[in-house]
Amino acid sequence: MTRPQVKEATATAAGALKGVFSAALTPLDADLDVDVGALVRHARWLLDHGCDGLAVLGTTGEANSLTVEERLAILDALGQSGIPGRALLPGTGCCAIPDTVRLTRRALAIGAAGVLALPPFYYKNVSDDGVYASFARVIEGVGDERLRLYLYHFPKMSMVPIGHGVIERLLKDFGPVVAGMKDSSGELDNMTSVARAFPGFAVFAGWDHLMLPLLKAGGAGCITAAANIAAPLSAQVYAGWRTGDVTAAQARLEAVRHAISAHQQTAALKAVLARATGDPAWANVRPPLVPLGAAERGALFAALDATGYSVPPVP
Amino acid sequence: MTRPQVKEATATAAGALKGVFSAALTPLDADLDVDVGALVRHARWLLDHGCDGLAVLGTTGEANSLTVEERLAILDALGQSGIPGRALLPGTGCCAIPDTVRLTRRALAIGAAGVLALPPFYYKNVSDDGVYASFARVIEGVGDERLRLYLYHFPKMSMVPIGHGVIERLLKDFGPVVAGMKDSSGELDNMTSVARAFPGFAVFAGWDHLMLPLLKAGGAGCITAAANIAAPLSAQVYAGWRTGDVTAAQARLEAVRHAISAHQQTAALKAVLARATGDPAWANVRPPLVPLGAAERGALFAALDATGYSVPPVP
Repeated sequence: MTRPQVKEATATAAGALKGVFSAALTPLDADLDVDVGALVRHARWLLDHGCDGLAVLGTTGEANSLTVEERLAILDALGQSGIPGRALLPGTGCCAIPDTVRLTRRALAIGAAGVLALPPFYYKNVSDDGVYASFARVIEGVGDERLRLYLYHFPKMSMVPIGHGVIERLLKDFGPVVAGMKDSSGELDNMTSVARAFPGFAVFAGWDHLMLPLLKAGGAGCITAAANIAAPLSAQVYAGWRTGDVTAAQARLEAVRHAISAHQQTAALKAVLARATGDPAWANVRPPLVPLGAAERGALFAALDATGYSVPPVP
Repeated sequence: MTRPQVKEATATAAGALKGVFSAALTPLDADLDVDVGALVRHARWLLDHGCDGLAVLGTTGEANSLTVEERLAILDALGQSGIPGRALLPGTGCCAIPDTVRLTRRALAIGAAGVLALPPFYYKNVSDDGVYASFARVIEGVGDERLRLYLYHFPKMSMVPIGHGVIERLLKDFGPVVAGMKDSSGELDNMTSVARAFPGFAVFAGWDHLMLPLLKAGGAGCITAAANIAAPLSAQVYAGWRTGDVTAAQARLEAVRHAISAHQQTAALKAVLARATGDPAWANVRPPLVPLGAAERGALFAALDATGYSVPPVP
């Protein structure tokens, strides 16, 4: 494996992603197989309703419940869909580094603007050296200077945090290939300090309510689950954060997020889309997730409706 | 997917596995590719030196750092090695259930006596319904009444515990297909209470020092990392626990375990085998694990040598 010819000491902001990204859901049919057509339709609808881009194949998208082949098929379908590559930020991080390399290469092949990569997440309490080595081996294995890698910091789910020292070392060794981070820690201090410490390194908030304070600290935007249904609100906040009054949109966005977060997020969002589309298959999830029961669904819809927000019509 | 025709209300002990199993290491070459020949040689050596069976492709075997194709190749090589299927208990549990089904089918095809399955381990705080559904879907997806599924309970690593209620429900619905459990929780109370609650359900201790008290409570044996180097000691304890004086063997086994557990276990065991074989490639691990440094290695060897235990000669 050869190291790509990109070794500048700091990342550059040129071409870095920014804005509102949806951690896009993955629709499943009755056999729990991926409904690629429905996924592409959902992706287009998201881009038509406030999203700048799509972080497909992430936590919300049940990526780790899909085989590598299923994920490759999704990437191929998106590549053939006409959706511009600059709107695509697929998740590619697996426990097995050869899988991460394979998915990342395919993401590059379909023209994706970047990839969002978890560290290997089976082993716990791994060393910073091990986390660094994991990402370095992915970058070297992909061996393509077009790669733009976004690190996925989600310690409560992956249980493998990505610390400042690892980011600094990766930037030093791989320059602009290490383009940014999604921070789903929920810790605003962590994401703002990363944004300040590494100018040009694009930091995305993994939580809707943290995008606004993160933007004020030099962040790049958000990548969130709620954007599957509430991207118009996020888009209002993103468009107006410097000059407009975004208080009402931010408050409503926060209310929507609260309604969703009271439940397992993927199952809750899929229940909302099943209602919005009239297609009950939208509610399907793969184990270990389970669909919301009727009572939970009722509570979710009541809480969501009480926010006053209406999901845009889904064709 | 069809449910196998095995629905007795309780598991049967007929044919259930028992004894000392090694959570076998996976040798890697300089490119960190699997050295299948070295793996088969290690497997034979383990069976010649105290192991009743081999839990290949588990946590110690870095299974989750391997692609599904790499794991299938290992299963095929073991199937062709002449090692009897009754000695094989491969790990097959992945985050994506179709992967678990595929690996489990291959394990059956090579004649493995059973499989040891993690629940899907990316999502945390999943419901008991979700854990049950995960295993049920694997059993139904495999659809073969020869399947003997051993549940892998390792809450500190997988972060997804397998509770008594889940075991009870699986036994009720799938009978002897749900054959046993490896309990790596380190909680003796949990494993003994499972062994007592479900007669015939074969409970293996994931820690060397807990095999003896577990055997006294009706358990089946152990599946441990230290057995990669110290199976002769485990075999002495297993052979003599009813009638012999196993105090000295148990104490030495515990000392060996302590020496290993002061480090990341896979890296430590591979360092020991690199020394025993004179082959430095044995020390290779895949990220996110990293090999022991020289100082750590020195401390490990000193502690191990101080136990008075000698690793049997490796050809």
